[in-house]
Amino acid sequence: MKDETRRLEILRINGTAAAKERDLVVREVPVTIFLNDVDLVTLLCSPKDIEYLAIGFLFAEGIIKGKEDIKSIFADKKDGVVWVETVEGKKLRDNILAKRFITTGCGKGLSFLDSPKHTKGLKARSDFKIRDSQVALLMKECQVRSQTYRMTGGVHSAGLANARGIVAFNEDIGRHNAIDKILGESVLKGIKTDNLILITSGRVSSDIIVKAARSRIAIIVSRSAPTDLSVKLARDLGITLVGFARGSRMNVYSNGWRIVVGSHAR
Amino acid sequence: MKDETRRLEILRINGTAAAKERDLVVREVPVTIFLNDVDLVTLLCSPKDIEYLAIGFLFAEGIIKGKEDIKSIFADKKDGVVWVETVEGKKLRDNILAKRFITTGCGKGLSFLDSPKHTKGLKARSDFKIRDSQVALLMKECQVRSQTYRMTGGVHSAGLANARGIVAFNEDIGRHNAIDKILGESVLKGIKTDNLILITSGRVSSDIIVKAARSRIAIIVSRSAPTDLSVKLARDLGITLVGFARGSRMNVYSNGWRIVVGSHAR
Repeated sequence: MKDETRRLEILRINGTAAAKERDLVVREVPVTIFLNDVDLVTLLCSPKDIEYLAIGFLFAEGIIKGKEDIKSIFADKKDGVVWVETVEGKKLRDNILAKRFITTGCGKGLSFLDSPKHTKGLKARSDFKIRDSQVALLMKECQVRSQTYRMTGGVHSAGLANARGIVAFNEDIGRHNAIDKILGESVLKGIKTDNLILITSGRVSSDIIVKAARSRIAIIVSRSAPTDLSVKLARDLGITLVGFARGSRMNVYSNGWRIVVGSHAR
Repeated sequence: MKDETRRLEILRINGTAAAKERDLVVREVPVTIFLNDVDLVTLLCSPKDIEYLAIGFLFAEGIIKGKEDIKSIFADKKDGVVWVETVEGKKLRDNILAKRFITTGCGKGLSFLDSPKHTKGLKARSDFKIRDSQVALLMKECQVRSQTYRMTGGVHSAGLANARGIVAFNEDIGRHNAIDKILGESVLKGIKTDNLILITSGRVSSDIIVKAARSRIAIIVSRSAPTDLSVKLARDLGITLVGFARGSRMNVYSNGWRIVVGSHAR
């Protein structure tokens, strides 16, 4: 936890009074991902679990399909660099670089959105259901685990859960990074995600739905708002999208049949 | 305002009760920026003021220095495309594309952070000061103007202000986009920004400081948390960084001499 924050001198103003204090501020580091020896992207992120971040980013971008595509990973936390070598090697690298020239890394998932042939294979098929009371408990568990958030207010959190509890959890200064970290952890540990729920503190834009779809996640629960494009995509992909999950309240935007309302919690 | 939101059917759950309702959801569209006929980047954003977004993005990335670099702009709102032609034309385009191969658009401002020669010319020199009570009033004015936020909870807001009030304001599903939109507006309208305050609802990561520095903005006020890297950069660049500005409370992280504490508001 100490690595995630730094104590800085600040001036705290409260109405007409001001006092110098030392306060915790969340850390931010640049991390560069090298794919088969080529500098692919630099992300601004929290310094924890950067190997999960790298693998999750490559997975969520569709660059690797799973653990079997990875030949080696080496993370240099001090210098903020992760080297990933894939089984496909140089061939993959050239394809990616050629493609990046056209779309760039920032318009993530855009070619995906435009192309029905890409979404076709990614429809959520899981018939997994969950009670609304369980959704509320899982969101609460994520909040309890968000220690860096409670100390600094400066991070988003993301979790993967089944009905019994959280199986992967992370925090990051970026809402995309937090999700990439738990997806990367699930890829590396071989955790099957198609019967898991993705929980996020952040807003749900279309690129978040794309990340979930690549993991075959069927239920996404957010504390915050979705966009109309994320709702449309969730409906098209058979994903259950829950927003504004706060206490026992929540809004269900798509495929509500996976949320069982009003039955008693354990 | 109607363009910014869409009414969708949702299931609203409140404890054990559930009801179908129609609710407002914020809109999200992909917008592609063509620079001198080359597809530069696709951003996921709110549909309003996409020409401001394009110009602000190009400015904040350091691709254009001001209005004098722009030859023409054409925004096709329906198809989500903005064409920008620069005076430098093809030469600029080739330089950018060559560079993008190495850094990509996502690690925004990173080469900037690494290189003291870049930051040197961008030190905030303004001796503009503001009372803490005025900071509180400006933050409040931004919140009052954040209509899309109040309707949907799904956007960030950004404003440019002097001590008397807001001179530019926008909202967007992305915190970076909202800031790019007000910077783009100031570039196109020739608004001088070195004596203005940047107000943002979002977290302040290092890339936000870089955007402000390129506009010579000397004071940044956020409702949310900064990161340690943004504080370091603000200190190095002579920028006053205020976080957690909520009501009459706020934390000052750097160059506190620009904030005058305890004097009476008008």
